[in-house]
Amino acid sequence: MSAAKQRQQNLDALMQPTSVAIVGASDDVVRISGRPLRYLKESGFKGAILPVNPRRDVVQGLKSYPSIAALPEVPDVAMLAVAAHLVPESVRACAALGVKAVVIFSSGFAETSIEGARAQREMQQIARASGMRLLGPNCLGLFNSALGFYGTFASALDLGFPEAGGVAVASQSGAYGAHVAYLAQQRGMGVRYFVSTGNEADVEIGEVLLWLARDPDVRVIIAYAEGLRDSRTFIEALRIAHERRIPIVMMKVGRSARGAGAIDSHTAALAGEDAVYEALFREYGVHRALTTDEQIDVAYACARGVYPRTRKLGIVTVSGGVGIQSCDAAERYGLDVSPMPASAQAALKALLPYAAVENPVDVTAQALVDMSVLTTSLATMLQAGDYEALLGVFLTVPASRPFAVPLREAIAKAAQDHRDRLIVLCMVADADIVRSYEAMGFLVYEDAYRAVAAIAALTAVRESYDRGLGPKLAVQSAAPIGMRELSEHDAKNLLVEAGVPLLPERLVRTAAEAASAANALGYPVVLKIVSPQIAHKTEVGGVLLGLENAAAVESGYEIVMQRARAAAPGARIDGVLVARMAPAGVDTIVGVHRDATFGPVVMFGLGGIFVEVLKDVTFRLAPFDEMQARGMIRQIAGYALLDGARGMARADVDALAQVLARVSQFAASHAEDIESIDINPLRVLPEGRGVVALDALIVPRRADANPSSG
Amino acid sequence: MSAAKQRQQNLDALMQPTSVAIVGASDDVVRISGRPLRYLKESGFKGAILPVNPRRDVVQGLKSYPSIAALPEVPDVAMLAVAAHLVPESVRACAALGVKAVVIFSSGFAETSIEGARAQREMQQIARASGMRLLGPNCLGLFNSALGFYGTFASALDLGFPEAGGVAVASQSGAYGAHVAYLAQQRGMGVRYFVSTGNEADVEIGEVLLWLARDPDVRVIIAYAEGLRDSRTFIEALRIAHERRIPIVMMKVGRSARGAGAIDSHTAALAGEDAVYEALFREYGVHRALTTDEQIDVAYACARGVYPRTRKLGIVTVSGGVGIQSCDAAERYGLDVSPMPASAQAALKALLPYAAVENPVDVTAQALVDMSVLTTSLATMLQAGDYEALLGVFLTVPASRPFAVPLREAIAKAAQDHRDRLIVLCMVADADIVRSYEAMGFLVYEDAYRAVAAIAALTAVRESYDRGLGPKLAVQSAAPIGMRELSEHDAKNLLVEAGVPLLPERLVRTAAEAASAANALGYPVVLKIVSPQIAHKTEVGGVLLGLENAAAVESGYEIVMQRARAAAPGARIDGVLVARMAPAGVDTIVGVHRDATFGPVVMFGLGGIFVEVLKDVTFRLAPFDEMQARGMIRQIAGYALLDGARGMARADVDALAQVLARVSQFAASHAEDIESIDINPLRVLPEGRGVVALDALIVPRRADANPSSG
Repeated sequence: MSAAKQRQQNLDALMQPTSVAIVGASDDVVRISGRPLRYLKESGFKGAILPVNPRRDVVQGLKSYPSIAALPEVPDVAMLAVAAHLVPESVRACAALGVKAVVIFSSGFAETSIEGARAQREMQQIARASGMRLLGPNCLGLFNSALGFYGTFASALDLGFPEAGGVAVASQSGAYGAHVAYLAQQRGMGVRYFVSTGNEADVEIGEVLLWLARDPDVRVIIAYAEGLRDSRTFIEALRIAHERRIPIVMMKVGRSARGAGAIDSHTAALAGEDAVYEALFREYGVHRALTTDEQIDVAYACARGVYPRTRKLGIVTVSGGVGIQSCDAAERYGLDVSPMPASAQAALKALLPYAAVENPVDVTAQALVDMSVLTTSLATMLQAGDYEALLGVFLTVPASRPFAVPLREAIAKAAQDHRDRLIVLCMVADADIVRSYEAMGFLVYEDAYRAVAAIAALTAVRESYDRGLGPKLAVQSAAPIGMRELSEHDAKNLLVEAGVPLLPERLVRTAAEAASAANALGYPVVLKIVSPQIAHKTEVGGVLLGLENAAAVESGYEIVMQRARAAAPGARIDGVLVARMAPAGVDTIVGVHRDATFGPVVMFGLGGIFVEVLKDVTFRLAPFDEMQARGMIRQIAGYALLDGARGMARADVDALAQVLARVSQFAASHAEDIESIDINPLRVLPEGRGVVALDALIVPRRADANPSSG
Repeated sequence: MSAAKQRQQNLDALMQPTSVAIVGASDDVVRISGRPLRYLKESGFKGAILPVNPRRDVVQGLKSYPSIAALPEVPDVAMLAVAAHLVPESVRACAALGVKAVVIFSSGFAETSIEGARAQREMQQIARASGMRLLGPNCLGLFNSALGFYGTFASALDLGFPEAGGVAVASQSGAYGAHVAYLAQQRGMGVRYFVSTGNEADVEIGEVLLWLARDPDVRVIIAYAEGLRDSRTFIEALRIAHERRIPIVMMKVGRSARGAGAIDSHTAALAGEDAVYEALFREYGVHRALTTDEQIDVAYACARGVYPRTRKLGIVTVSGGVGIQSCDAAERYGLDVSPMPASAQAALKALLPYAAVENPVDVTAQALVDMSVLTTSLATMLQAGDYEALLGVFLTVPASRPFAVPLREAIAKAAQDHRDRLIVLCMVADADIVRSYEAMGFLVYEDAYRAVAAIAALTAVRESYDRGLGPKLAVQSAAPIGMRELSEHDAKNLLVEAGVPLLPERLVRTAAEAASAANALGYPVVLKIVSPQIAHKTEVGGVLLGLENAAAVESGYEIVMQRARAAAPGARIDGVLVARMAPAGVDTIVGVHRDATFGPVVMFGLGGIFVEVLKDVTFRLAPFDEMQARGMIRQIAGYALLDGARGMARADVDALAQVLARVSQFAASHAEDIESIDINPLRVLPEGRGVVALDALIVPRRADANPSSG
């Protein structure tokens, strides 16, 4: 068996063990070393439970063994609940015995000291050499509630074991993961898997997500991450989850500078730039949750498994006010509260003469006197209104027990012929009443705004599935550009080869050559100094614009040469570029930088104040195709300027998309040897006339920036 | 007694009655006509309770009277729970008897039909003539829980009466108001007053807010509105609340076009433009809540009454992950998670060798083993860190009952010497445990993000109090401009009088005059056609720029005159303006429009794409002073362009603020006769060089735009 396959099978064993050892097992059922054993006993785990404790024969009523080597069988999983300095020795013993996976609760490793980091690396090497998997250290463990396997000391389990529903929780932070799993449980969701990865000496969050995305019982994944080491497996997990239509609702913290700083000291993981995560999540339809509430709200909605096919939202309300609030929320989240067809409105008006019947339909208190009115209103909206999602606002009505059952039945009757529609209720009631509504297939939220936000999130997930991921582009291999500095001319030549259009220009080395080049290109022309040591030509006066004739070009040549020599004495000067003045258009910026986690990332934005003051830019991982580039272009706030705002001609967005895609593919081919690319401005001409790069800079990757090659 | 004083006293009686009649009282304790009586009996209302029902002698065990006229005493308040067509007659009978206020539950008035609107107007006239106050119709009534006065049929009261704490709820929507009052109660807040105003035939939301803002027992007001009729009383309420430091947490719905449409059909109230509300709320420190959760969260925080003096936030956490999440939230909401002083860090590091101690302080699981570590950590942050607000992240720890009391005591011990600080906990536990923490003065939130948002809201309230409201500017009376159309020249003259600097310019009527004016002003100059019928001069070719000498000016004069005559035959042409070309600067726009609800509103923004594509503008009600104008200028996203971004000179923001304030005062003086003002562009020159208006348009208010004068 290959090592990779071995590691995969051992990961399976970690997630679904048939026998479990607890090293350092304690009789004290409150301590970290006592709790997992108690949970395993109480939850009815069917496999062998093997305590290891040299000082006792029996722990919590089970026969205990003096050492790992003395175990009567080789367990699938060994949990290590021992002091940090004893952990490496236990890991070695487990590997020697052939244990498939160990879970290390102990802290005091890479997160605390250099010695700790050394011990962690040592354990990592044992794991790599043996194929044994290693969860942690400094983690809260994992559970698989369907098997009653609790390899964790999460104290929230004292409040009850979760049901084995379709929800999985994967978290780098144990405390947060346990918190969100508990909240999910409280919200009535069945949490089947919980995995906390801690310091990630071996098993990383990406691999866990990939495993969960492939599991047939998982319907939605709640994830939490601070940073990634292995971005490839993570992206693969997003791809598989997208293919299998398993939504991921993810909290990625560290957006803020302060938060990112805290990450560094916390897990020592590499935090990729936040905007890159944002781009990645958008691409793969991952719902990024900012708050825990949002994460629970959206996961709860996803667990229902009904994803509206359109953005049309119907609203039935007992309160005009909350109806309006819901409309405001719909606008904010991009849902469409379009009116019902006139005939349906007329039918409802006959039934509810005093009510608003357009959408929202305000059924008023009358519907509560005669519940059949409510049923008819809801059924009319579903049938004639054809709303894919229906929000019913009932506030505290079902909290009154005399109303709870008739209201539920009235809604259920309207919904019975529309099982494919999403029915969401805004209501407040005791938990047992809420559960009885959920059992009929309705989603229940207390807050109308949050209900609308969740509906919009489901719609976005559906749209992401419908859109698909686009082709997985093969990266063309390219000859490395080397580590030398590149002049503008060199950079432009590379980009021209890559398919980026540039204005015709000539490199000249005398004033006379400059004039004859200008005569050939046509006036007016621009002159620019060319030197690898002068990156910012304008600042040294190395650029002259709008020269109208040969005499001006000749004297201009001397001027820029003098200025360059004065500003950068000793710099190598390759000559002067003569170029035709560019036609008018909209200036944009295309940039590439090498993200430490994800590799080359393409940035796009409008030029000038849009980038510098408003930061109106968007990102995407390279490579991508033209269709994906077009989506990227539409994301910027100033897109209207390209689309013919203010009476201007529509810009050539097709050509722009083509060039963006080409740059992304070029960047991907040079992932290892280009640090950054800056095409600024890339001028977009009116529709049908293409784009043209007016300036370009390529910074090669310096040898010292790549420790692995050093 | 004056009529106004009478109405005021009768409003007092409505809010604090000593005797109550229920007209149409029923034995059925579930019906609208039976519930208020039941609530009054069960709540122990001390005053007289007088059922009126011609068909019964006894209702719910109380003696009933056959008619309003037959009542043995004149009640302070009469609730009308009768069919819509019987309401006007009852209102008349109440007024005849001298009842101080009536509450009308019935619907079927202005919200449903023209006849209903007529009946409502009739009742309104009875109320105005008699001084009797009228709440509703189509409302859910009101309550005053301190008196046990329940003049409402809100079914949520079946679940228990609220405690008479410091929270007041005022809502145009009865259903929403009752919903939010119930949620406030569930969150442990004591709701003292609840008032729903329904159709507002007499008592409006502004008057209710004003009453509540003056009440000595109210500490925070939760408000809900869809639109306003009487904006003056509303603004007065905001002012009094601000002076008395009673925060208002307000939901104003109808931001979206669809929502505003629903308002029209719902209450027929006038919806002011949303941005104007936004400006007003900012000015008066009103917290605008978008969601019900947010409204409850912030009101709950305000009820505690501790408002941090600075934006510094300290964080102590048992989860590194949620610590990072809290940093992200702090950045989003503008709080400052600055590190502890080095000495304090060193002290904590000795105690927590494995923990992050900068801020957030990650106490890890160790603090739960030895709670004194937690106490020391918290006390150090409060003392040495000097954080005005401290967030403690404990997640599910206190949910485990063995931890709940020791954890609470450990926090309380740290806090005991810092009663003036705000201590907010992020935790999940059963309600009784949460209440025991709150009893120690701690605020409790389940979600860290929401906790941080609430802390930021408290800080903003404090900042608004510290900033003050600025002077209440007296509006200068001004001679009306009349209803005639104004040419650019007339408009500019008016603005020059108001103190808006304009470029020196002359109105000329011949080519020769034009040339001599240009000679006097200096070159280059601009020519512009002047005609009251030609508003958009550029479009007809009526503007020529950059004329360099007398000959160009003379021929230019003929050109613009010809173009104007061709484009607008028969238009009155007053001549041509000759002006010096403006110096370079940043172009801004200053506009004024007359909001239907609030009167003149000033808009400010940067010119060009900033206004047209990015809608980067800000609003403020006129009049205001220079300091307030400066605040307004800083609100736009593109402010950096005025503040010296991209290496440009800093613009003359002082001069800009002065002109904005002058325009606002001019607009306020002409509130009744100017419809709109458009100064576009107002060019802001480099610091110390002032501003200059390059173009200006004033549209007088047309007679037919003012129904009350027609």
